[in-house]
Amino acid sequence: MDQALFTANNVWMLVSTVLVFVMHLGFSALEAGFVQKKNTVNILFKNAMIISIGLLTYFIVGFNLMYPGVNEGGFFGFGGFGLSMPEGDAGGIAYADGGYTYYTDFIFQGMFAATAATIVSGAVAERIKLNAFLIFATLFVAISYPITGMWKWGAGWLDAAGFYDFAGSTLVHAVGGWGALAAVLLLGARRGKYQKNGGIKPIPGHSMPLAAIGVFLLWFGWFGFNGGSVLSADPVAVSLVFVTTSLAASAGAVGAFFLSYFLFKSHDLSMVLNGILGGLVGITAGADLMSPMEAIMIGGIAGLIIPVSVVFFDRIKIDDPVGATSVHLMCGLWGTLAVGIFGAKAGLGQLWTQLYGTLAVGGFTFAFAFGLMYILKVTIGIRVSEEEEERGLDVAEHDMEAYEAGTVTEPAYQLMK
Amino acid sequence: MDQALFTANNVWMLVSTVLVFVMHLGFSALEAGFVQKKNTVNILFKNAMIISIGLLTYFIVGFNLMYPGVNEGGFFGFGGFGLSMPEGDAGGIAYADGGYTYYTDFIFQGMFAATAATIVSGAVAERIKLNAFLIFATLFVAISYPITGMWKWGAGWLDAAGFYDFAGSTLVHAVGGWGALAAVLLLGARRGKYQKNGGIKPIPGHSMPLAAIGVFLLWFGWFGFNGGSVLSADPVAVSLVFVTTSLAASAGAVGAFFLSYFLFKSHDLSMVLNGILGGLVGITAGADLMSPMEAIMIGGIAGLIIPVSVVFFDRIKIDDPVGATSVHLMCGLWGTLAVGIFGAKAGLGQLWTQLYGTLAVGGFTFAFAFGLMYILKVTIGIRVSEEEEERGLDVAEHDMEAYEAGTVTEPAYQLMK
Amino acid sequence: MDQALFTANNVWMLVSTVLVFVMHLGFSALEAGFVQKKNTVNILFKNAMIISIGLLTYFIVGFNLMYPGVNEGGFFGFGGFGLSMPEGDAGGIAYADGGYTYYTDFIFQGMFAATAATIVSGAVAERIKLNAFLIFATLFVAISYPITGMWKWGAGWLDAAGFYDFAGSTLVHAVGGWGALAAVLLLGARRGKYQKNGGIKPIPGHSMPLAAIGVFLLWFGWFGFNGGSVLSADPVAVSLVFVTTSLAASAGAVGAFFLSYFLFKSHDLSMVLNGILGGLVGITAGADLMSPMEAIMIGGIAGLIIPVSVVFFDRIKIDDPVGATSVHLMCGLWGTLAVGIFGAKAGLGQLWTQLYGTLAVGGFTFAFAFGLMYILKVTIGIRVSEEEEERGLDVAEHDMEAYEAGTVTEPAYQLMK
Repeated sequence: MDQALFTANNVWMLVSTVLVFVMHLGFSALEAGFVQKKNTVNILFKNAMIISIGLLTYFIVGFNLMYPGVNEGGFFGFGGFGLSMPEGDAGGIAYADGGYTYYTDFIFQGMFAATAATIVSGAVAERIKLNAFLIFATLFVAISYPITGMWKWGAGWLDAAGFYDFAGSTLVHAVGGWGALAAVLLLGARRGKYQKNGGIKPIPGHSMPLAAIGVFLLWFGWFGFNGGSVLSADPVAVSLVFVTTSLAASAGAVGAFFLSYFLFKSHDLSMVLNGILGGLVGITAGADLMSPMEAIMIGGIAGLIIPVSVVFFDRIKIDDPVGATSVHLMCGLWGTLAVGIFGAKAGLGQLWTQLYGTLAVGGFTFAFAFGLMYILKVTIGIRVSEEEEERGLDVAEHDMEAYEAGTVTEPAYQLMK
Repeated sequence: MDQALFTANNVWMLVSTVLVFVMHLGFSALEAGFVQKKNTVNILFKNAMIISIGLLTYFIVGFNLMYPGVNEGGFFGFGGFGLSMPEGDAGGIAYADGGYTYYTDFIFQGMFAATAATIVSGAVAERIKLNAFLIFATLFVAISYPITGMWKWGAGWLDAAGFYDFAGSTLVHAVGGWGALAAVLLLGARRGKYQKNGGIKPIPGHSMPLAAIGVFLLWFGWFGFNGGSVLSADPVAVSLVFVTTSLAASAGAVGAFFLSYFLFKSHDLSMVLNGILGGLVGITAGADLMSPMEAIMIGGIAGLIIPVSVVFFDRIKIDDPVGATSVHLMCGLWGTLAVGIFGAKAGLGQLWTQLYGTLAVGGFTFAFAFGLMYILKVTIGIRVSEEEEERGLDVAEHDMEAYEAGTVTEPAYQLMK
Repeated sequence: MDQALFTANNVWMLVSTVLVFVMHLGFSALEAGFVQKKNTVNILFKNAMIISIGLLTYFIVGFNLMYPGVNEGGFFGFGGFGLSMPEGDAGGIAYADGGYTYYTDFIFQGMFAATAATIVSGAVAERIKLNAFLIFATLFVAISYPITGMWKWGAGWLDAAGFYDFAGSTLVHAVGGWGALAAVLLLGARRGKYQKNGGIKPIPGHSMPLAAIGVFLLWFGWFGFNGGSVLSADPVAVSLVFVTTSLAASAGAVGAFFLSYFLFKSHDLSMVLNGILGGLVGITAGADLMSPMEAIMIGGIAGLIIPVSVVFFDRIKIDDPVGATSVHLMCGLWGTLAVGIFGAKAGLGQLWTQLYGTLAVGGFTFAFAFGLMYILKVTIGIRVSEEEEERGLDVAEHDMEAYEAGTVTEPAYQLMK
């Protein structure tokens, strides 16, 4: 491999890594904006810990679970704890055919891994116990996500079966969405959300600017999420992915705009923001396979899914403060199936493979998440007390308030009292 | 073209694309910060829709209006709807002499296009009807911006005449500023702004942190806006552009700092923030032609323009809540003329060409924007009612409030009532 | 040098420049979040001016003080005012062996320089006079920072002595921290902070979301701060630096999480946020020398330092509203020493060199900062009046409020009254 081309490829993968990192800020801002003021510190705390714990556990076990280098075509493999730099390849230069080094691979994939847990954090916000959530997130990222990831990206059985998921509509987003669904089922709705007379009480988020900043930053990061999934800086492939990703996001906004106006007679900002995210999730499985026009169709349909899905989940009393199940689960499923409907791989056979592939990943993930959360529920408990929920998690779990309170000097003060 | 060099060039153009994308977040935050709390959702909604609609319309007609590939030296050309990948050049590899692919060109230029409409949105904030604005923005980006853009960047008559505008002091910023001026003239000032006794009522923005975040993000994005306008990763050219761009922004801050302190006896944050933007707009036409010292002079003068211009527009009762006409129109004009005064192309002949070039573009843009807005005014109406303006557009147009209200669960709730 | 490799290297250095620029936004948001609402405009104003003045002074004198190209092995050198593009090397192509151009070098280093002053601004927040601070920051960045920087990075005496500081645990962070310590000693604590009865009054910051956004953006920028310090896009070196930097930040969060929970029985968000920053500062001196596991140890220990240091500084009545001395001084010292304890250069001799190197830099910086601040104190004064501190600096120094007040129209209004 030519040294200059290797360097250019690796630069792009590192830039992509940085962009995917920013998605953690995007999720933090989005989720903080969509929760109540009294639970803001809590959601920021969870997001700061998720990326930190996520990178550490991905280093310890995750990377070698997801890319075990053994058991090709199988269900499970493990390459050992820590990293395993290829022997006789100083710095991992020969690794990956000059697309990137071994360390680049680890850090790029590590940034991906933690996003799955972040998706869960939004759905369970405002009533989950902090310690229970952190244990759940740690094991979800360290074990569940890499195992199903290995099925496709680690050359496992789904890869052998022809399942296609370019950048993770299923492996990242639906996985996060299934985890969220399992957690919410065990956790229950926020107090007062679904009333005895059948009414549904809106519990408004506390900052639309934060939510909007979050969505723009997620779109920003998605250029690395999808663009980096080319796994080199190949100019034709990456630039096509930029075009399909952007057009799908745009179409998602427009789709959600029109349908929510039609349904609710209102220009609903949160629907448009989630429409953008839905479009992004939808195009992710096939961003490299679609023409610009196909990307617009996939994103536009994802945008239409958002308002319908938000209403649907509220009707069946799945309380999800940020719409994570609609965005990541529903649009993740849609995007995975869309690979069999549009673009270079369209066909009934592919559609069928996409369907059972995503259901297999979803089934495993749901079972893992449900089982883990159930164990936590019957042991340490997963839900804060009514009184803590009422006061808000910021005071209950953090002795802090998000605004005009809570600084570095407080603990020192408390210690010295 | 060497594959490695092509790849490195294209990586830079894609990074620039991502940076220009971030400017839409920058504008969103800046404008949200400078409007009143009660109009925050509205401005965020507009900005989320502008980038989405802008990319879609640029795909459908804009790109082929701006770079028609026909009618060189002319006033108008159209290459057909959608994209037209060069025949026989799979992926657009041979396109642009190895600077970037066809898709890279489209997406980079598409990010630029929508900024013109975003500039308008700040100036008309707090009293324009949402639907009227969205129709205006759509046609402005889809038709007006590409036509004048073609005059220079699409090898049209201004290009043939020797007009120079490196990254768009005229073609993007003054165009946005002229559109803003036309719109504000037809729309009128916010209620109570200019009082009968001749007094001017300050209508303070609601969040200086949002405004400051916006300006920093705009500077951040400008590294791609100007740096990407080199149209390759040429190390000497791009690094010079980084230096001139940054020094002009810095000098703009310092110029606005001193003059506003001299005039108002106050350390005015909004003047310094707009001074930075003024410096950036000012250097944009000649960022590749100037020495560092010349960049400092251009930016410094732009910084001096800001407080004078803000006062001027208020005196003639042009009500512009964010200062968009001062930043983008006045400093855009200044930067365009500065190409004839400083740097590699300085000279009376060039100055004259710069003058009639920018006036030609401005004349077309103003006429288009005024005509379009006039038609909207006499048909669907462009201004919200007094009562809606009083309540704020967030409640009037969106049934939402920006803070501690407005979440994904509301519409569902409304639907089920 | 191969043109393609040169281009790829230079692209990476420019991307790093952009990332380091974002750190100024990160610091702005962090510091704004950690101060009281009434001092928010002031801290944003200072940060907007620091980067602007910093780049201009680095252009005028700083760059040629830090990289004088003369007096190798010495204590002081100066290459003349302005920039001095190498003669006979058009555009600085041959400069730096094809790693980057001359202009790239200037702008990358210029972004670094201003961070040192930004670190001070957080520690002295809420009671320093604006003009005194701006004079201090200007001279600190223009003179003090480049002189000690030259000792190591400009091939001065510490470089000759074998001192190692990859990306600036000492040269940037401890330098900022020493400046902060000197300034706080002369300035004194905020009114009411340390009470007569020995109690310490918590003075909470006003926005945890701003603080969290700031920390995520700093981590984001650190990929350029450390990654760019490789001074080329060398794939193995940069990707290793990405891994060590990220794992140290993660370990810092976890270390601060556990120790602050143990000490204070609370999940303290500001400790976790400062733990991330502490981990980043700690790894900076040796980010290219450490294995992933060593990076985790260095970052984890930095995370443990944070809560202890915050308590320590409060006990000795050093009032630092944002924890800058704990993060940048203490973890900067730790990171510098860690080069002698862990990694490729570990050894008693190196440890000793690291110790006297960092103390020499610290001694010079502290003396410079203390002397300068002392002169300002006895001449123009450095502290606002009691009444101004009470009202807040936003109104006292800027005639503005951060929220729901303060827009571009106010000064014009005032002028016309």
